[in-house]
Amino acid sequence: MNIYIAEFIGTGLLILIGSGVVANVVLNQTKGHQGGWMVITTAWALGVFIGVVVAGPHSGAHLNPAVSIGLAIAGIFDWALVPGYTLAQVAGAAAGACISWLIYKDHFDATDDPNLKFAPFATAPAIRNLSSNFFSEVVGTFVLILVILYSTGANLEDLNNTPIGLGALGAVPVAFLVWAIGLALGGTTGYAINPARDLGPRLAHQLLPIKGKGSSDWAYSWVPIAGPLLGASLAAGLFLVL
Amino acid sequence: MNIYIAEFIGTGLLILIGSGVVANVVLNQTKGHQGGWMVITTAWALGVFIGVVVAGPHSGAHLNPAVSIGLAIAGIFDWALVPGYTLAQVAGAAAGACISWLIYKDHFDATDDPNLKFAPFATAPAIRNLSSNFFSEVVGTFVLILVILYSTGANLEDLNNTPIGLGALGAVPVAFLVWAIGLALGGTTGYAINPARDLGPRLAHQLLPIKGKGSSDWAYSWVPIAGPLLGASLAAGLFLVL
Amino acid sequence: MNIYIAEFIGTGLLILIGSGVVANVVLNQTKGHQGGWMVITTAWALGVFIGVVVAGPHSGAHLNPAVSIGLAIAGIFDWALVPGYTLAQVAGAAAGACISWLIYKDHFDATDDPNLKFAPFATAPAIRNLSSNFFSEVVGTFVLILVILYSTGANLEDLNNTPIGLGALGAVPVAFLVWAIGLALGGTTGYAINPARDLGPRLAHQLLPIKGKGSSDWAYSWVPIAGPLLGASLAAGLFLVL
Amino acid sequence: MNIYIAEFIGTGLLILIGSGVVANVVLNQTKGHQGGWMVITTAWALGVFIGVVVAGPHSGAHLNPAVSIGLAIAGIFDWALVPGYTLAQVAGAAAGACISWLIYKDHFDATDDPNLKFAPFATAPAIRNLSSNFFSEVVGTFVLILVILYSTGANLEDLNNTPIGLGALGAVPVAFLVWAIGLALGGTTGYAINPARDLGPRLAHQLLPIKGKGSSDWAYSWVPIAGPLLGASLAAGLFLVL
Repeated sequence: MNIYIAEFIGTGLLILIGSGVVANVVLNQTKGHQGGWMVITTAWALGVFIGVVVAGPHSGAHLNPAVSIGLAIAGIFDWALVPGYTLAQVAGAAAGACISWLIYKDHFDATDDPNLKFAPFATAPAIRNLSSNFFSEVVGTFVLILVILYSTGANLEDLNNTPIGLGALGAVPVAFLVWAIGLALGGTTGYAINPARDLGPRLAHQLLPIKGKGSSDWAYSWVPIAGPLLGASLAAGLFLVL
Repeated sequence: MNIYIAEFIGTGLLILIGSGVVANVVLNQTKGHQGGWMVITTAWALGVFIGVVVAGPHSGAHLNPAVSIGLAIAGIFDWALVPGYTLAQVAGAAAGACISWLIYKDHFDATDDPNLKFAPFATAPAIRNLSSNFFSEVVGTFVLILVILYSTGANLEDLNNTPIGLGALGAVPVAFLVWAIGLALGGTTGYAINPARDLGPRLAHQLLPIKGKGSSDWAYSWVPIAGPLLGASLAAGLFLVL
Repeated sequence: MNIYIAEFIGTGLLILIGSGVVANVVLNQTKGHQGGWMVITTAWALGVFIGVVVAGPHSGAHLNPAVSIGLAIAGIFDWALVPGYTLAQVAGAAAGACISWLIYKDHFDATDDPNLKFAPFATAPAIRNLSSNFFSEVVGTFVLILVILYSTGANLEDLNNTPIGLGALGAVPVAFLVWAIGLALGGTTGYAINPARDLGPRLAHQLLPIKGKGSSDWAYSWVPIAGPLLGASLAAGLFLVL
Repeated sequence: MNIYIAEFIGTGLLILIGSGVVANVVLNQTKGHQGGWMVITTAWALGVFIGVVVAGPHSGAHLNPAVSIGLAIAGIFDWALVPGYTLAQVAGAAAGACISWLIYKDHFDATDDPNLKFAPFATAPAIRNLSSNFFSEVVGTFVLILVILYSTGANLEDLNNTPIGLGALGAVPVAFLVWAIGLALGGTTGYAINPARDLGPRLAHQLLPIKGKGSSDWAYSWVPIAGPLLGASLAAGLFLVL
């Protein structure tokens, strides 16, 4: 499988699961309605698991521009591949959100609040305070990238490959990591920790003919892009220093 | 163990657990009453885990006609085995639902709503819209089969065998996959993603002398059969193309 | 470590965790008060995990007379060891329940209902119907023993040893199995599926000076003994036939 | 990575996740508000997972003075390293709590109850009874250390190294262990089971300019220090005897 197709499909699966679980929990008349934070964070973690299982052997399963750019800053991923990876990730995320919307379309229609219709797409802060929100995204992504770098071990050349030795089980640690970040650090901004995860579905929300939709909140959209990029850079830098 | 007995027992265990957890959550006076979506989806995932552990080394643990037919379309499972596998799966699913009913019989009797008495057997859509419901089942099964194909890796000849190298731990990834699909994509139709899982227990509901039962809703029954079969076919096709 | 000490400590840890989580969920003023079925079943599964990790390399970590007797019936465990194993298991279970009571003593005192004071010790059926309750325990234990037999594979000589090749991770499958049984089949009787798990703590409840305690319900006590023994025997028989 | 830096970072990540999840569940207007005991205990378990993944290969990932001292009493960790490890752990825990506070600062400000503002920092008993609370911490830590000693197997020389053979998956068992202890035994005191986990964040609570904060409750602070140290000593002693 082509590396860009792998990133597209892997990120698409991640967002299909992630957007889907938010739709299931927040929209009306679903079977998982009001399922709670455990439902949401578990599914996002498992969405990462699925994306890594599918894309890992082909593209390294970055699924996240913060990963691609963080590794490039650390000198262990080719800068020339970053634009293509990023584009594939954003496009995959947008596609995943579109399919999630199609699945839950009747439930979008059965829900009035435009904020609830927006939630399955992009992140929105619990308390809007852009500097705090930005800091949350920086720290969450810092933890994500730092632990990824350490869990792949001292062999930098392994970083472009997800751990495959254990088969699909090798994707469990990163899923647990994302689970932890969601449960613990996601309470403020909804933990984008991934510019593609937020931008792609936000574009989809803007473009799709969602009945009764509200704003796509572009004023906030730089936070889940810049925060993760800074967090990833700091983690890559600390990893190199240590 | 004979391959058909393996499929019968594996699917029976899957449905015993899956039907059991729904009974536990929806029927009156159970210890898990109103346990929530997390309880239901976790148990279904673990039911798959159990079925794969028991049947895997003997039949490959399809436990699902969509798996058998999808693999056959992809040219990596013998079409001649498909009818026997399917029959064993449907019969196993019916048997599992019967045992679940026997266990929870007092709780069925303590519950008045016929819809709640039906829920431990077959799936029913949250919002009845057959084309949307069909689409949900297509996508859910597409994700299931695509990730199964990729997680078994490039060796097509491995597809008839579940990953055994890690012992029973090899069944963890498919359980996580089903967990994700349930949490995220199950909110619309209750995620049959398996024709046998729905048809077998629906037959059991029709035939069993359940006190105060309602309709077995055969008008809906084609959706959780045709949707999964199409989804599996699309996934197998995409896998072959890529 | 001596095999009987291993069974005593392993079963003691299992019941300390299991009794502890029930106390945490049902007694007043605890931090886990009303935590739900997910909390209870997850902890019981992890209690099995812990017991298997500690006792596995020394005694095979039966932790359950139904396991010991089932394996003996199947001809793969020495009948001469069964009485000692059983005694160690019951004593360990009683000890674990005593320590759990000591930890939660202030919360027992803060709770009035004698049924809630009993719940951290032994099982009680949700709807008292001894034949149904017995059947529940038979099926739950049948699933437990059948899957244990199949997950250890075709090498019967491995049955006395828990899977050690993967280190402590080898205890994950049996924990997942108990998790599934609890979530799905535990809603009727509270899933003893283990005579020692019920008898030991019931004895402890009888003997301990618990303020305001009620009956230890000996009329029910044969169900969680005889049901698991029959279920284990049936599973061992089916395994041998297949 | 230097061993003390590894302990600092590992414990810092553990407490960032642990303090973060408590903030997410107890403070106002968070996305995980009132998420329940399952959310809290799962995140703490995963926080241990993360800390062990990062620090394991460098320092053995004690992350807990009770581990360091327990191992030293057992004669399998150098007493000369204990002061440095302890200092790094306490400092890391304080740092993690400070970062968690910064992330959730707006939510601390949106919460009035000083007890809720204290909860993300240090432990507080559900029912204040110092001898019971002490006993809870002794038993919880006893279980933690005993199982760690047994899960690393008979090779004492392996104790300074976390299990690395399985990559990051080797950190799963200790995470499951902490999950079990939290779910089952954490209902009384909130399971410090780690002097650094309590003392570091308590110092942070004392020193940070938290708006409307209450007492740092130093009268209780010896319990989550002395209890874990005694529990660890007893476990190490029992391990040596057996």
